Amino acid sequence: MKPILVLNGPNLNMLGQRQPEVYGTETLADVEALCEAEAARHGLAVVCRQSNREYELIDWIHAAREANSAIVINPGAFGHSSVALLDALIIFEGPVIEVHISNIHARESFRHHSYISRRAQTVIAGAGVQGYAFAVARAAQLLRG
Amino acid sequence: MKPILVLNGPNLNMLGQRQPEVYGTETLADVEALCEAEAARHGLAVVCRQSNREYELIDWIHAAREANSAIVINPGAFGHSSVALLDALIIFEGPVIEVHISNIHARESFRHHSYISRRAQTVIAGAGVQGYAFAVARAAQLLRG
Amino acid sequence: MKPILVLNGPNLNMLGQRQPEVYGTETLADVEALCEAEAARHGLAVVCRQSNREYELIDWIHAAREANSAIVINPGAFGHSSVALLDALIIFEGPVIEVHISNIHARESFRHHSYISRRAQTVIAGAGVQGYAFAVARAAQLLRG
Amino acid sequence: MKPILVLNGPNLNMLGQRQPEVYGTETLADVEALCEAEAARHGLAVVCRQSNREYELIDWIHAAREANSAIVINPGAFGHSSVALLDALIIFEGPVIEVHISNIHARESFRHHSYISRRAQTVIAGAGVQGYAFAVARAAQLLRG
Amino acid sequence: MKPILVLNGPNLNMLGQRQPEVYGTETLADVEALCEAEAARHGLAVVCRQSNREYELIDWIHAAREANSAIVINPGAFGHSSVALLDALIIFEGPVIEVHISNIHARESFRHHSYISRRAQTVIAGAGVQGYAFAVARAAQLLRG
Amino acid sequence: MKPILVLNGPNLNMLGQRQPEVYGTETLADVEALCEAEAARHGLAVVCRQSNREYELIDWIHAAREANSAIVINPGAFGHSSVALLDALIIFEGPVIEVHISNIHARESFRHHSYISRRAQTVIAGAGVQGYAFAVARAAQLLRG
Amino acid sequence: MKPILVLNGPNLNMLGQRQPEVYGTETLADVEALCEAEAARHGLAVVCRQSNREYELIDWIHAAREANSAIVINPGAFGHSSVALLDALIIFEGPVIEVHISNIHARESFRHHSYISRRAQTVIAGAGVQGYAFAVARAAQLLRG
Amino acid sequence: MKPILVLNGPNLNMLGQRQPEVYGTETLADVEALCEAEAARHGLAVVCRQSNREYELIDWIHAAREANSAIVINPGAFGHSSVALLDALIIFEGPVIEVHISNIHARESFRHHSYISRRAQTVIAGAGVQGYAFAVARAAQLLRG
Amino acid sequence: MKPILVLNGPNLNMLGQRQPEVYGTETLADVEALCEAEAARHGLAVVCRQSNREYELIDWIHAAREANSAIVINPGAFGHSSVALLDALIIFEGPVIEVHISNIHARESFRHHSYISRRAQTVIAGAGVQGYAFAVARAAQLLRG
Amino acid sequence: MKPILVLNGPNLNMLGQRQPEVYGTETLADVEALCEAEAARHGLAVVCRQSNREYELIDWIHAAREANSAIVINPGAFGHSSVALLDALIIFEGPVIEVHISNIHARESFRHHSYISRRAQTVIAGAGVQGYAFAVARAAQLLRG
Amino acid sequence: MKPILVLNGPNLNMLGQRQPEVYGTETLADVEALCEAEAARHGLAVVCRQSNREYELIDWIHAAREANSAIVINPGAFGHSSVALLDALIIFEGPVIEVHISNIHARESFRHHSYISRRAQTVIAGAGVQGYAFAVARAAQLLRG
Amino acid sequence: MKPILVLNGPNLNMLGQRQPEVYGTETLADVEALCEAEAARHGLAVVCRQSNREYELIDWIHAAREANSAIVINPGAFGHSSVALLDALIIFEGPVIEVHISNIHARESFRHHSYISRRAQTVIAGAGVQGYAFAVARAAQLLRG
Repeated sequence: MKPILVLNGPNLNMLGQRQPEVYGTETLADVEALCEAEAARHGLAVVCRQSNREYELIDWIHAAREANSAIVINPGAFGHSSVALLDALIIFEGPVIEVHISNIHARESFRHHSYISRRAQTVIAGAGVQGYAFAVARAAQLLRG
Repeated sequence: MKPILVLNGPNLNMLGQRQPEVYGTETLADVEALCEAEAARHGLAVVCRQSNREYELIDWIHAAREANSAIVINPGAFGHSSVALLDALIIFEGPVIEVHISNIHARESFRHHSYISRRAQTVIAGAGVQGYAFAVARAAQLLRG
Repeated sequence: MKPILVLNGPNLNMLGQRQPEVYGTETLADVEALCEAEAARHGLAVVCRQSNREYELIDWIHAAREANSAIVINPGAFGHSSVALLDALIIFEGPVIEVHISNIHARESFRHHSYISRRAQTVIAGAGVQGYAFAVARAAQLLRG
Repeated sequence: MKPILVLNGPNLNMLGQRQPEVYGTETLADVEALCEAEAARHGLAVVCRQSNREYELIDWIHAAREANSAIVINPGAFGHSSVALLDALIIFEGPVIEVHISNIHARESFRHHSYISRRAQTVIAGAGVQGYAFAVARAAQLLRG
Repeated sequence: MKPILVLNGPNLNMLGQRQPEVYGTETLADVEALCEAEAARHGLAVVCRQSNREYELIDWIHAAREANSAIVINPGAFGHSSVALLDALIIFEGPVIEVHISNIHARESFRHHSYISRRAQTVIAGAGVQGYAFAVARAAQLLRG
Repeated sequence: MKPILVLNGPNLNMLGQRQPEVYGTETLADVEALCEAEAARHGLAVVCRQSNREYELIDWIHAAREANSAIVINPGAFGHSSVALLDALIIFEGPVIEVHISNIHARESFRHHSYISRRAQTVIAGAGVQGYAFAVARAAQLLRG
Repeated sequence: MKPILVLNGPNLNMLGQRQPEVYGTETLADVEALCEAEAARHGLAVVCRQSNREYELIDWIHAAREANSAIVINPGAFGHSSVALLDALIIFEGPVIEVHISNIHARESFRHHSYISRRAQTVIAGAGVQGYAFAVARAAQLLRG
Repeated sequence: MKPILVLNGPNLNMLGQRQPEVYGTETLADVEALCEAEAARHGLAVVCRQSNREYELIDWIHAAREANSAIVINPGAFGHSSVALLDALIIFEGPVIEVHISNIHARESFRHHSYISRRAQTVIAGAGVQGYAFAVARAAQLLRG
Repeated sequence: MKPILVLNGPNLNMLGQRQPEVYGTETLADVEALCEAEAARHGLAVVCRQSNREYELIDWIHAAREANSAIVINPGAFGHSSVALLDALIIFEGPVIEVHISNIHARESFRHHSYISRRAQTVIAGAGVQGYAFAVARAAQLLRG
Repeated sequence: MKPILVLNGPNLNMLGQRQPEVYGTETLADVEALCEAEAARHGLAVVCRQSNREYELIDWIHAAREANSAIVINPGAFGHSSVALLDALIIFEGPVIEVHISNIHARESFRHHSYISRRAQTVIAGAGVQGYAFAVARAAQLLRG
Repeated sequence: MKPILVLNGPNLNMLGQRQPEVYGTETLADVEALCEAEAARHGLAVVCRQSNREYELIDWIHAAREANSAIVINPGAFGHSSVALLDALIIFEGPVIEVHISNIHARESFRHHSYISRRAQTVIAGAGVQGYAFAVARAAQLLRG
Repeated sequence: MKPILVLNGPNLNMLGQRQPEVYGTETLADVEALCEAEAARHGLAVVCRQSNREYELIDWIHAAREANSAIVINPGAFGHSSVALLDALIIFEGPVIEVHISNIHARESFRHHSYISRRAQTVIAGAGVQGYAFAVARAAQLLRG
């Protein structure tokens, strides 16, 4: 089984320092370790990448057609505006799980909508970094199914 | 620790028979067993209830102030229309986790909005019945935190 | 052939007394007799029920999967607000005919939209109580077809 | 009693050939025969006309002030856009019944609204060609009342 | 003179415990005593009822046609969503006074609109429980007038 | 205790002559006498002013910071359009009670919204001139509280 | 000086019979005589035409490029919907005056907007048939200017 | 017959100097002379007033109940925002004619709507200062009728 | 192969004279010659028709089911308003190519939307009359494919 | 060079006392001194005026055509609602600079829009009273340019 | 003559693999060869570039001011969201032709609008890869004109 | 004191060449020199950067947490669309000043809104390049305060 690609979008490199009252105190490294551990519980591997560059996320998704079995993505603010990212995910054929650390539905109204949600099988918001573990577990389940 | 209240709203008594291509083939009994198992993994108990009656859900939430530590709720269609349910949950003081079996964000536009999401800490949509396990795990985590 | 279920929603128990200039002077008993007569003309039976309780309508629709061949429903005001009722009707597999006694399209704008119309095969508005006869006749036709 | 005018608007001359999965396989001649038969059941006559020309429908409605007791109209697509047709019907003083073969409320959103419904006493949608029979019966009932 | 019916809708059984910073510390019993006292000042009686059940409120309003001279209603969250409740009140022929404990016009935008206000003669919002006294006094005035 | 300032906005000098079927037959002098009497019942005084001039209302509100304990205001049509009046009231620190003689929520849609309601503690609409008595009583209660 | 073209759109052939409480009791012949008289006062001639046919109005406007100095048009209901009529008038180079017999701004909201008003120099609504005299006088003034 | 009140609102004292390409080169004195002349043609007198003060316009309208037979008003920019002016005009019982020098329907969208048009019998826009003559003539006609 | 039907809608008979800065100086005859030439390059014939009559366009489209292999249509202003034309094109089974001479997306907002675009395979806007050549070439390609 | 007119609108006479956490502690006198000082740095003079009266602001702007070289205006709440003020500024021919002390774009949504911004060359918001200095400096620069 | 710049935006490097039922089976290399061939037919050259990077497209457009005579651009999803790309194209002075392979007007509503269309002379949608040939031909024509 | 970071977004490298009638003739180098000079007047330094790359702006803002005391940003077109940029600025803790060279509030409506304005203390639009000097002066003031 190819590894699951775990993508983090813009500003998520600042996790831990970024508004801890909203996003918590765990760092991106913590998130990636957590994903690895959860994947291991399901006998799977993950590849974790973060970028503030929309194109880099797109390129990685293109490459995932060959290299990955599923995608777990926290699109950050790109979820609210990037049709290009949506289009890249539409080309990918495996499961796509969307994660938001905060509950975007209880914040400013422009955060309520995500283009990515049209493509994702599953959307998890407001579960903190634990949401990544759920997302990996969900991907594992879908890959099994 | 008081048990977690797992609430299922209207039409969820029909799980398994209800549009299986959307909601899957597991029954409500399966869901409740799954919640129980997940809670047990965290050393917790659950109380599971389902109703097509808005008032009954409200009454159970009122009672939960005394009887329960957290609420996991799949409001079904009431999520889209019931301010009364939102108001009941606002009175409750513990964690509230919202679950939707299907990815409501990829369905008709009137399903994209849930009043419950304003109150819930966490919203999980489109993870099938596995979403209940995530919700119980999230409640456990919040109760621990 | 199983009987047709004729459902009347909130405030329709007041027919005859309720704004006769809008809803006419026939009572609910008149409506039910009229449905029975029309069904008999097609060699069919009807079961007539009215409730102001959303859940009772939902429960009857659930039970109709076993017990009834078709549903004729005047959802009353629930048509404008109840996704739960729509979801119940989506589970039912036979013909669904929606009736409104008054012409809802020529009244206040919040009455122009009915969730039920997304599921119903046929929508009849403003035919007075005669609309029920048409609805039963239509159900009979669809059951024959 | 003057005959009922049965009007069919644009593209309805193509009935039977036009998207049979939406509009059925009966032809306009079938519809007109059905109206005639239903009217005869009520001791009434019909005059049936179809046009793709908005002005012709308007002219016929003007003439109906003298010549007809009631109007049954399937405005086709003109229902969604023609205030001129609405204005013509407002001048007519007898009953007006609106028919749509398909359930316009369950199709594209621009089909949900009909200007004609503001003037019509009764609106019937999605009853297939049987809707014309209901419309004639309704007109007969209103003429009797 | 028949007694005034004082109705309280969903979650108002929790008064005193429910967000006291919004709704105050008086209980529903306090409210009902206050209504009774105010009515007595006008030589009138009240009957007080609370329900989280939409249908029960509807049934009581139906019965009020015989039993009550006026209705004072705090519809709670049902004011924002229930056309059925509005329809029930339209059938009632005496004065209807709407009360909201908090100033709904200064809260979330979905609380600004109440269907009930279309039918009520008087709307009082943000006067705390004193609003009930005003409502009873207003009903008394209208009954005198 | 400083007197309560009772403000009446544009066109309220015409009370009694102005659409009596909407606003009643009492004059502004009647209203002011009524306010005085109600205040006296609470051991308070009122100062009553009316103006068709937006700036005069603003100036009086500015002066009220020194001279008055509370403001009862019927902003008339300025409620629908004047942010300047809202801003003046925001500067005032005591209780603000908004009164409308007619039930603005049951009239044209542009009358449903009042900027003043964002600042007022209490909003009373459709209680006729009795609404002023309620407003004064409410102000008294808030001053006591 | 070429004659002024006076155009009347759909349903205006029914003037006098058509909702006299809205449109008055004068007939189209009265209107045309009134236009002729007013034009004569300015030393001008008129050519008057009415049609329920959108294309005929368009054709006449096309021909007016050669034959007429100005256009006075009551587009009737086409004003609310016909971009084609607007486009025809844009091609015409002389003055265009728009007339509505009733005050369209005080009627249903779909009558508030007219595409023709984007092209017309002058818009007169609610002056009854006198509005045609004003329109001819305005055209005369613009031709003089 | 009492004189007609001709009211001009804000910025109309600047006529002649104000954007002549939009409003023309005639001055307010020219407009008032033109109104006088037109009224004289109908055996009537006019009283002309201009103000940039909303309250002054309101006060004059109140006084017109006694002093004037009809009102011709160019509300200027107040037409787009002043409900208070509308309310004053609603109290007046004679004919009200609204004039705009420019064609407000072909300018910025916020100029398309005028509150005054709800009350006025007649609305004339884009006839330049000639529109005042039409308005006086229309008032004369309505006073005769 | 049956000829391609090239349809031009309202006001396109005025090409060359109509706002040349928007639509250019070529005439309709030029357009038709250009279509013929382009079709000949692909071994195909065209039949060219123009009408200001909506019904005539509809009738020609109906007839095209038998007579034509594809339709190239510049609906002119009907594109923005005619559902009837859309419905006619839906009945046609061959390729449909929509052409607009000007770039409708850079003009007034009411020109941005065309009902025809829902049915057309290809939409070409702002290519001047060259757009017709592209449309014919596209039709040829689709007929070949 | 004529002096720059510095205008302050409603409620700005309360600066220093008015919500200091939003508007700061400087008084209007401080603002005017600051403007004078800044103008002096550019070899210019200012005339400062404040009014809560819309008409007074309009009158001053009219007079500025003769008396002033530029206008710096903080329209206060009138910016959100006064087309009359916009129209007055359109008549003025020199530079217009708009100032808001607070960042109106980060406050309630009804404060985001200002009619004045359509006419102003420059808009400065949220620079506190320093914004006036910038505005005077900008006016000086435009007068130099 | 400088070469035409042919730009392809995000995800278009995946042509041939990307949803072939929507975008066809030709690859980007095929598209570029097709552009080259079409340009050669007009005696012109093309330079073809693709990028998933918004900034790279912007940089190439900036450079095109010196290096290219015209731009043919398929902005992909950036058309729906990138004002920055629009701004870059506004700086370019030669012809701009916009191409979309699929008919964006018949897809999800968020694909109906393109910022680029405000700047482009010509917009071609739904002509498959043939649209690029049309675009190059159109650019050639505009360069000739 | 750490230097102020002056950021310029997409297309601002083209200043001087880019629509000089909108953006003026100064170059980016001029802007940066102007910022440096203004900062020096306040005893401060600036670091100036421009990028067409959203990610680069984000990365510089992240780094500014350590390296800079305040940020002056002209986000260019990213202001209208980039939530990611807003999120980056929310993480930064010092003053943020937003500058637009043109008055975005008087241009196309999609330019009226900037996400950045939610975070910025101060917004300056339409002051040309002088706006940068104001912004630096404002930052200096806030750093002093």
